[in-house]
Amino acid sequence: MSVNSSQRIALIGLGTIGISMAALHLSRESNVVDVFDTRPDFEDYIHKTLPIYMSELPSTTTDSKLSPDPQPPTMSLVASLISSGRLRIHSTLESACASATIVQEQGPENVDWKQSAWARIEAVAPPSAHLWTSTSGIAASIQQAKTQDKTRLLVVHPFNPPNIMPLLEIVPAPGTSAERVEFAREYFSLPGSRHRPVVIQKEIPGFVGNRLAFALLREACYLVQEDVVNAKDLDTILMASLGPRWAGNGVFESYQHGGGEGGIGSFLDKLGGTMQTVWDGQGRVNVEGDERTEWKEKVVAQVNEAYGTLSAEQIQIKEARLKDIIGIQTKDYSRDGP
Amino acid sequence: MSVNSSQRIALIGLGTIGISMAALHLSRESNVVDVFDTRPDFEDYIHKTLPIYMSELPSTTTDSKLSPDPQPPTMSLVASLISSGRLRIHSTLESACASATIVQEQGPENVDWKQSAWARIEAVAPPSAHLWTSTSGIAASIQQAKTQDKTRLLVVHPFNPPNIMPLLEIVPAPGTSAERVEFAREYFSLPGSRHRPVVIQKEIPGFVGNRLAFALLREACYLVQEDVVNAKDLDTILMASLGPRWAGNGVFESYQHGGGEGGIGSFLDKLGGTMQTVWDGQGRVNVEGDERTEWKEKVVAQVNEAYGTLSAEQIQIKEARLKDIIGIQTKDYSRDGP
Repeated sequence: MSVNSSQRIALIGLGTIGISMAALHLSRESNVVDVFDTRPDFEDYIHKTLPIYMSELPSTTTDSKLSPDPQPPTMSLVASLISSGRLRIHSTLESACASATIVQEQGPENVDWKQSAWARIEAVAPPSAHLWTSTSGIAASIQQAKTQDKTRLLVVHPFNPPNIMPLLEIVPAPGTSAERVEFAREYFSLPGSRHRPVVIQKEIPGFVGNRLAFALLREACYLVQEDVVNAKDLDTILMASLGPRWAGNGVFESYQHGGGEGGIGSFLDKLGGTMQTVWDGQGRVNVEGDERTEWKEKVVAQVNEAYGTLSAEQIQIKEARLKDIIGIQTKDYSRDGP
Repeated sequence: MSVNSSQRIALIGLGTIGISMAALHLSRESNVVDVFDTRPDFEDYIHKTLPIYMSELPSTTTDSKLSPDPQPPTMSLVASLISSGRLRIHSTLESACASATIVQEQGPENVDWKQSAWARIEAVAPPSAHLWTSTSGIAASIQQAKTQDKTRLLVVHPFNPPNIMPLLEIVPAPGTSAERVEFAREYFSLPGSRHRPVVIQKEIPGFVGNRLAFALLREACYLVQEDVVNAKDLDTILMASLGPRWAGNGVFESYQHGGGEGGIGSFLDKLGGTMQTVWDGQGRVNVEGDERTEWKEKVVAQVNEAYGTLSAEQIQIKEARLKDIIGIQTKDYSRDGP
């Protein structure tokens, strides 16, 4: 089955990530999306939230493709998707999955829940259906403990906010078939996807994005604990240097550039001494357990004092800014040169 | 002396950082800048490179303030700055510093050189002059070993590329006077400065920005060494998630937001288990010494293959993009909101 053909996608769990995925899948004209969630107000919730996420997709797509047949102007977007059969709301997991070519779950981050969900899904979904989990932490190999076929499941891990962030970490289990990995990668690379899928070659706690984030966070917490800098100033440092640098270039590309003609090899020769000193002195604070967790109280207090609770308006402004930053990554600078 | 009054700034060492600083200081109408460098083509070099950096400053400043008196159109920018006495090229360090209110050095990253330079500077500069070093790694307390007065010197550490990056880490020695720290912070906060100065409270190797960068880099090198992901894909992951996130928000602010109503405290409670697992499993690779340095060959090969040597045109495009990303940080989203 080609990734370009029509897909029938069963979405299990319609939180923020699920709704955002529903909007993406529905933005492709020929897809049918089956949704299931246990929340009591599920149908109302879909009517209310889905249009918000769909309106964020490129307008050419939403205008021309979502409603190929003119609808009465009084009919809402969701009602029109339902009446055309492109969106189907289900009251059982089984009926949602029965005809799927792709099943994608965004359920609770709980090993038992996921293991039994996949066993139930395997029992009802067509054997050819692709199985995707949006987990941020439970490896596919653990989730599929109770399934027969160990070649189908893989992680498709989005980043918050999923309606804006381009990254999808695709993390297969050791036995996941290469074709299924490639299918997922291609699906999210199709025109109209805002995503940038990357295949992670091995299962590892935190995958890659959160491992990198937590490595930096650990040092950040240590520096606040040691009174080298306060939490707010540390954030300013990040926003005024590394954030923009890594939004424009990766970390390896930055140091390739920083090393001049000799590239990252020269950089490591030149800066190796300082780098090793920093690595030897890195803060080994902990977040759990009894030792070296004193930083938590100080960090939480400083962060609460600096930011409080973000208002809806503040979040909206932050998200608009984030979209602009990501928009710049795909702008063509060679055309409008200096 | 108020930070708002005219300053006479002696710049010692006119590499990229020095030239960029000269452009900033000269963009303030009432400043006089004295420059000294040992390169044989120093005067030619100033004529050639300074206009490039000055043209990047806000045009209202360069147009209206740099040439208050109309100059013959045939006179170059640098010639006009020299003829008006605002830029003075020196052939000795002593004459450059003789009348300074600020001495700022961007010389070699070499302890001996810096210690003897500051001893020479202290002997000739007015006792009230502020002493700033742009070092990325040699603490002020070490640099001032041979000076009498230990209250004057502090680090003003810029980030590459210094003509674009807003961050300045201000790092005093334990004995540096609070007034001198505040003077530096205010000077770089004046309208017309593109900089965001942050005071680091304690001397520590790598200061804050590089410590955070090297913490992330260490994990990145480990993940490549372990074949979890290749160097190019790791860069894509960073650019498609953490880079934009940290360009728009700091790391602490991001997790404050990520924790919902309970803020970063809730986030640490919820994600603490995964975070501790990741912290316990962090890669402890080294860049110097005999152990755990196997990653270097693999990383250098993958990065060279992915990026090669950046062309001048590629660098120009990258810098234009970086400027746009940083421009977004100061854009007012509340005015043109939805």
